[in-house]
Amino acid sequence: MTDDTFARLPEPPYWAVVFSSRRRTADPPDGPDDGYGAAADRMVRLASGYDGFLGIESTRGPDGFGVTVSYWSSPEAIRAWRDDVEHTRTRETGRARWYDHYELRVARVERAYGWDVAG
Amino acid sequence: MTDDTFARLPEPPYWAVVFSSRRRTADPPDGPDDGYGAAADRMVRLASGYDGFLGIESTRGPDGFGVTVSYWSSPEAIRAWRDDVEHTRTRETGRARWYDHYELRVARVERAYGWDVAG
Repeated sequence: MTDDTFARLPEPPYWAVVFSSRRRTADPPDGPDDGYGAAADRMVRLASGYDGFLGIESTRGPDGFGVTVSYWSSPEAIRAWRDDVEHTRTRETGRARWYDHYELRVARVERAYGWDVAG
Repeated sequence: MTDDTFARLPEPPYWAVVFSSRRRTADPPDGPDDGYGAAADRMVRLASGYDGFLGIESTRGPDGFGVTVSYWSSPEAIRAWRDDVEHTRTRETGRARWYDHYELRVARVERAYGWDVAG
């Protein structure tokens, strides 16, 4: 059963941006609404409009640690998204308000495999 | 504030295995204990003993979708871990019991950046 949770990607090679982060506070309803959820949704929509955007997979556990992997056709596409003015402003808000630590890795995907229970 | 949640990695290049998966059922205490938690912990310990293992970051949300990224020094190290007998057996159990879908991508990390609130 495949759905929008998983990115539907072409055959490699393509590129991945692995963004590992830890929130300072829990998401609602456990914590106050600090605007994070709406901004995260907005960033996905904005990135999706960029040439070379292939897909995104994202999750966060109850401890506030999350991993988001976005997939791109080229390093140039990743740079264009990095330089987006609204994205840049949102990253600044993230450092000021939402995260206590993050790591970002840019990688070239060489091989990929999938499996589904339906066979 | 860095802790064991984040992998402490050398300068690129190195390799990443991005494993995105969806569980069939929730982890305890919301669901029955199907052995997943213990097996996942065991796999981290086993992988950590392999030459070329650099670190791991892993999280899963309440919807059962999770992302685990393990980091390796070379494709050869990844292959050795893939061919581990206990790991192979555990993957078979995963397909039989724990997952309904997964995707695996092997990527060469070219650039990396980190940020911490402490500056």
